[in-house]
Order: sequence, then C-alpha cells, then structure tokens
Amino acid sequence: MNESIDLLLNHRSVRQFEDRPLTREQKETIVSCAQAASTSSFIQAYSIIGVTDKEKKRKLAELAGGQAYVEENGHFFVFCADLHRHEMIGSMENKNVVPSIESTEKFMVALIDTALAAQNAAIAAESMSLGICYIGGIRNKLEDVCELLQIPSRVLPLFGLAVGYPAEMTEKKPRLPINHIYHENEYRQNEEEDQEQLEMYNQIISDYYLERTKGMRNDTWTSQMATMLEKQSRMYMKEFVKKIGMDRI
Amino acid sequence: MNESIDLLLNHRSVRQFEDRPLTREQKETIVSCAQAASTSSFIQAYSIIGVTDKEKKRKLAELAGGQAYVEENGHFFVFCADLHRHEMIGSMENKNVVPSIESTEKFMVALIDTALAAQNAAIAAESMSLGICYIGGIRNKLEDVCELLQIPSRVLPLFGLAVGYPAEMTEKKPRLPINHIYHENEYRQNEEEDQEQLEMYNQIISDYYLERTKGMRNDTWTSQMATMLEKQSRMYMKEFVKKIGMDRI
Repeated sequence: MNESIDLLLNHRSVRQFEDRPLTREQKETIVSCAQAASTSSFIQAYSIIGVTDKEKKRKLAELAGGQAYVEENGHFFVFCADLHRHEMIGSMENKNVVPSIESTEKFMVALIDTALAAQNAAIAAESMSLGICYIGGIRNKLEDVCELLQIPSRVLPLFGLAVGYPAEMTEKKPRLPINHIYHENEYRQNEEEDQEQLEMYNQIISDYYLERTKGMRNDTWTSQMATMLEKQSRMYMKEFVKKIGMDRI
Repeated sequence: MNESIDLLLNHRSVRQFEDRPLTREQKETIVSCAQAASTSSFIQAYSIIGVTDKEKKRKLAELAGGQAYVEENGHFFVFCADLHRHEMIGSMENKNVVPSIESTEKFMVALIDTALAAQNAAIAAESMSLGICYIGGIRNKLEDVCELLQIPSRVLPLFGLAVGYPAEMTEKKPRLPINHIYHENEYRQNEEEDQEQLEMYNQIISDYYLERTKGMRNDTWTSQMATMLEKQSRMYMKEFVKKIGMDRI
C-alpha cells in the first residue's frame, strides 16, 4: 500500500462544496494531469471547458437536473470528446480524414481518451484534498449545453466534473465482489455463481443503505439497477451523436 | 505538488517488461483500485479479464498486431464494457431493460465507466513502480478476441493493459499546449490562434522525435495525425458493436 493507492481506494463522490474557488494554479495542475494520461495513438481527442461564469453555471445546473453542486463548487469542468481539431488538421494537411472521424471506432477512441484524461483530473484533485463529483446529467439536454458553451460539431460533451473543498463527509460505497468483475483467461459464465455473488452483494448494499439512512432506505443493487434501466433515458442520443458528426459509419 | 500528482505527470508508456509476473496481491490491488473509480449511477458496467495462459497471450499478441509486449509482461488485463450482467439483472428482477442497454446513451456510459476504472488501474500499477501500456490493438479483430476469451454478447473488449516491471526507460511525450485543450466558459473558435498553437506544438514534437531518434525521424503532430486518420481503420466496428447488442437505438 502506498499513498496513491490509498487515495484511489478512498474515493467517494462529494456533492456539497465550500464557497471557495480553485486557484488558477490548482486548475492548471488538474488539467496538466488530465493531459498526462495515455491517449490512443497520441490522438488527444478531447477538450476541457472550465465554467466560471455564474449565469452559465446556473443554466448548466438547471439543464443537468437541478443539482446545486453543479452551480456551487470550487470549479466546474466539462469534458468533451473532440474530433473537431482533427477535422481542421485534415484541411491543414490536405488529407481526407472525414470517414475516419465519423467512424464508430474513432467515436470510441475519443470517448476513452476523454475518460482517461478525466480520471487523471479527478485523482489530481483528490490528491490535493479536494472533492469531486462526475455529472452525467449534462447529457440530459446536450443540444442546449452545446449552445450554452458554443460547442462546434464533432465535439461531444460527455460529463461534467464538479471540484471543490468538501463541505460534507460521505461514505465509500461498496463495489461488486472482485471475483464478479474480474475473470481469468476467459469470461466466466456461470449463472448460478453469478446469482449467488449478486445476492451476497445485494445484502451488502442493502445494509449500506439501511445504515446510512437510519433504516429509511431499503434497496438492493439489482433492484436499483433494474429500476433505473427499465426507465429509458436519453434515447435521443443516437440521433444527436450522428447529427454532430460522430458514430456515423 | 504532491506524490500522486508527481506520479500522474510522469506517466510514460512502457513497451518492454521484465519476465517477472505480478503477484496475486498486486493484481488484486490493481483491480480493487479500478473498482474504486466513479461509476455512472453506480452501474459498474465493466469486466476485467486477466490473461495468464501463455497460448492465449501469444494469440492475443498476434491479433493485436504482433507487439511482443502483449505477450511478454508481468500481467495482461483486458478491459471490457459490460452490459451483460445488467441484462441478467433484468431477468432476475423481471423488468425489461433491453431498450436501455441497447441505447447509444448506455453504450457511452459503459465505455466511460470502463475507461475510468482502467485509468485507476494504470495509476495503481504505476504507483507500485510498475510500467503500463494500453493496447488498442485488440480492437483489430474483436470477433477473434471474443472467441478466444469466451466473451458473451453485450460485452465489448475495449483495450488491453499490459503491466509489468519496466525493462526500458522511455521519455515523456509532450502534450498539446494547455490553452489548446482547455477553454473557459465557451469553446474558443479562432482558426488563426488554433493554427498558431498547432504550429508551435508541431515544432515541439518534431524536436522530440529528432532528439529521440538521433535525427532519423522528422515528423510533426499534425502530419502524424492526418496520415493516421486518412487511413480508415477498424471500419467494421459499427456493425460489430450492433451485432453484440450495443449502440443499437
């Protein structure tokens, strides 16, 4: 065990921040760490938009579903998969890159690149005793988010990252059993074993919620997942992504 | 600056490893750190397959394009976006989750979840003085990779992660200028400024290659990108992803 592993294992999302903005140096360190992450074939297919304008933050919070911590934090980053600059590079270098950047493969590459960078940003922030929360809610209304942040085509805002000085203590949420997530040499398909593991995990999660809510919430992981997934959300995504010129071919 | 930031900023990919396998404890620490990453709505939409079988590693290396370090390393992880268990959960809980898990939105969620976990794994490994290299090459022939690792539908291998004791010293690769990647309040669209930044960066990359190859390689970032993107690669991806039941609607 070392300091970094300790940091990784102790992650918890923070949803309440002090009213204290990050310094320019803190922001630059976080972005530099994001950029230091691995990138597929050196493609660097992302952009990061820091939002400081109060009115824009208020609007973003509203679009993301009304969470106060989108508006109230030390800094708010929006991580975007970005193949816009690569289209520009195609013109600069006089090469037809369009089929490539419209492919599902490069869509995946851009998403992965962006997420690797973001996770580095999250860890950098946490290492400075800041708290973080990923905000998938910005995908509720991407058309409006893109207009608000003047985002061009081939750029897809994936999630926000709220960062700041924690104003609450939160608990670590137990993860799936390691042997449910981790396989060796082949994907283990054993329905009986899987169900046993899930039931064991359900018990852990149920205890976690009961304790955390003083008996008010009784929920299992599988029921939580099934309820969430039964509801079809953001079903406009396929059309939207295609419209902005990604995942087309 | 703290120890973790130092670690993040000093990342470089390692492509030559000592012949010394990771211990069970090292592997478990790496996977536990992966699991500790943020996950969208707690969905945990990934699986990790460790490959230890020599013949399977040899085959994977071949499929990935013949890189020796896929075969020769301390351990080889395959990170998979996974909505297979969520389909199973739907049946367990008697809820129709299929439209949800076939949506582009959940495809994105699964990719992002997997990448966040993988980056935690990479950092955990590096914090233990191990080296890492992401292997996108496994996407060359996913049909074969899925067969080799007996991967069911709704599970998409995204990349490998080779981990081990470094047998080479590599250099940090300079990233795009921070003000090219980072915007405030709106996506800055200024073609002239962008081109200036790219030309400045081209000079940095050109110097980097010249020095590293003792004058043998003279290349700029934009020409490298345009050449790579002009070539259409893995164009089967859209059909493949659809076939396994993802990114369909």
